[in-house]
Amino acid sequence: MAVVSFVVIIGNPRPGSRTARAASAVAAAVAAAADVPGTPEIIDLADLAPHLLAADPPAAVAEATAKVAAADVILVASPTYKGTYTGLLKVFLDRFGAGSLTGKAALPLLVLGAPQHALAVEVHLRPLLVELGATVPTPGLALLEADLDRLDSLAKEWAAQIPPAVRGALTAGAAR
Amino acid sequence: MAVVSFVVIIGNPRPGSRTARAASAVAAAVAAAADVPGTPEIIDLADLAPHLLAADPPAAVAEATAKVAAADVILVASPTYKGTYTGLLKVFLDRFGAGSLTGKAALPLLVLGAPQHALAVEVHLRPLLVELGATVPTPGLALLEADLDRLDSLAKEWAAQIPPAVRGALTAGAAR
Amino acid sequence: MAVVSFVVIIGNPRPGSRTARAASAVAAAVAAAADVPGTPEIIDLADLAPHLLAADPPAAVAEATAKVAAADVILVASPTYKGTYTGLLKVFLDRFGAGSLTGKAALPLLVLGAPQHALAVEVHLRPLLVELGATVPTPGLALLEADLDRLDSLAKEWAAQIPPAVRGALTAGAAR
Amino acid sequence: MAVVSFVVIIGNPRPGSRTARAASAVAAAVAAAADVPGTPEIIDLADLAPHLLAADPPAAVAEATAKVAAADVILVASPTYKGTYTGLLKVFLDRFGAGSLTGKAALPLLVLGAPQHALAVEVHLRPLLVELGATVPTPGLALLEADLDRLDSLAKEWAAQIPPAVRGALTAGAAR
Repeated sequence: MAVVSFVVIIGNPRPGSRTARAASAVAAAVAAAADVPGTPEIIDLADLAPHLLAADPPAAVAEATAKVAAADVILVASPTYKGTYTGLLKVFLDRFGAGSLTGKAALPLLVLGAPQHALAVEVHLRPLLVELGATVPTPGLALLEADLDRLDSLAKEWAAQIPPAVRGALTAGAAR
Repeated sequence: MAVVSFVVIIGNPRPGSRTARAASAVAAAVAAAADVPGTPEIIDLADLAPHLLAADPPAAVAEATAKVAAADVILVASPTYKGTYTGLLKVFLDRFGAGSLTGKAALPLLVLGAPQHALAVEVHLRPLLVELGATVPTPGLALLEADLDRLDSLAKEWAAQIPPAVRGALTAGAAR
Repeated sequence: MAVVSFVVIIGNPRPGSRTARAASAVAAAVAAAADVPGTPEIIDLADLAPHLLAADPPAAVAEATAKVAAADVILVASPTYKGTYTGLLKVFLDRFGAGSLTGKAALPLLVLGAPQHALAVEVHLRPLLVELGATVPTPGLALLEADLDRLDSLAKEWAAQIPPAVRGALTAGAAR
Repeated sequence: MAVVSFVVIIGNPRPGSRTARAASAVAAAVAAAADVPGTPEIIDLADLAPHLLAADPPAAVAEATAKVAAADVILVASPTYKGTYTGLLKVFLDRFGAGSLTGKAALPLLVLGAPQHALAVEVHLRPLLVELGATVPTPGLALLEADLDRLDSLAKEWAAQIPPAVRGALTAGAAR
């Protein structure tokens, strides 16, 4: 199996967010289910936020975009703000051209305060990843904040439901 | 390779529609690219339309739903009416319960009169298939009517862009 | 004040549906809040369903479309099936051309089994009415089935939140 | 007629953008059609961008949010980036709480590079404004970059199509 680069993007402006915790658990569950070796690399946009719209961003911003550009699999996580992903996440993804994530597999994850926003993962976040060119082979995952006390089991259940062939598409030169 | 059942649903109320022509070409291109043996089976809803909302539908309706229930891969095609898929297609798919297409791979295809409706394939048709439980591993395909004179080459280009691992997910017990 | 024609379309295939009950309550609340004289006219598609896709529909179908074509204000109500409005509703609305409801005000209403589908009223139903040309001056209303025991008070609260000028836009030659 | 505060938000990161030009023309056409006195106030986010995600933003950011909070009518304009509004616009609007624009009328405007993204104004931008609590009484306006050479006439045509009662809802204590 080829070495797979698995990157997790966390679009919550607050450091140490529930989004970060949820994304790590889902990434671990997907890596286990799909037999991805190594540890996913985390890009927490809370760290980069003050620089993302700066006129002259520090090297850390270019390093983060380079990691995404080199990834095979990307988990894209955000809380819902105003019924959709955060502006912070979109500002980061706006650094990439349309179609520039072609050949990568992307997994959309939203952490919801209210169940009323659950469709946002399919109608807002996933179309954004498709526009960027990513292959999005699974349904998006919408996790309620109220359910995060059983985060690990929810993450495992979700990863287990990914059909084996799609798990294959996530890895092993996956989308190559 | 396991035998794969590939079904094409055509949601255009007019017999012999451009949608039917486009769906057949795309199905053939996908079957060739993913090495699916046999011929896709066509369900043209133009034939079933008068019966789909009838109080006592003929056996042909139950036969059509049984074919879908037994399929491994489903190509779901519709023209855009009022900026989204047709009511005819939705009436047919409303016969299936939420989640009842779990384990099947679905490919969304819209034939557009105007490019302004292109996003409908991602924001309207694909979420419907996800709600039904299908795995939708590729982006949707939006074909302009004005481009149908080069239908075969467009279909081949689209099928060729499907990553190999996702092609695998489409077939070979694919989504099993 | 000009006489206003207020029509309610019910897109539930079952006669005597909760959708019908909810739509009637919301229509009454809107009519009271906006000071619309008379009684809204109900088009219950459960009655027309067997004929809507028939090759040779009876006069009742043409009468229903004529009522919509003559309306000033239209309340469009549906349950959520597969995370969006019903195929039955779409089949009826597909009888109207794009832009043919120009000059009419439309109010979108969905009755939800699960809160997870709440966004459907804004991302699926409202864009359909806009595509038909209708003015949709209010947010859509998403009512949970579980909340229907306090239907009348919810309907009144919603109608009361419509800004006075928008209530004016709903009536009195409203959208003229 | 009460004095109306009309604010234009421009969500393009580049100063002197086509979005800014389009927004000004549409605002002028709406103001003329709806008989709004005075001149719309412009908030060009290109000026604020470097500060919007800063840890300690300058007073100009709080002044801009105060203008929006005091507005009666808001025109919200963005180019399409990746098939939807910009991250810059969302970052600014994320400063407002859900429902905090209640009582204001909002007009959505997207400037499109490609017609394929036209639905974004209805399925992405408008639901965001509704979530913020704004009344969005008109359809969104999607302007193609290629059509900007006849911007003034397109803006006037669009403003003229707004029904008189909805124009009233935009102004005159509009949504009050």
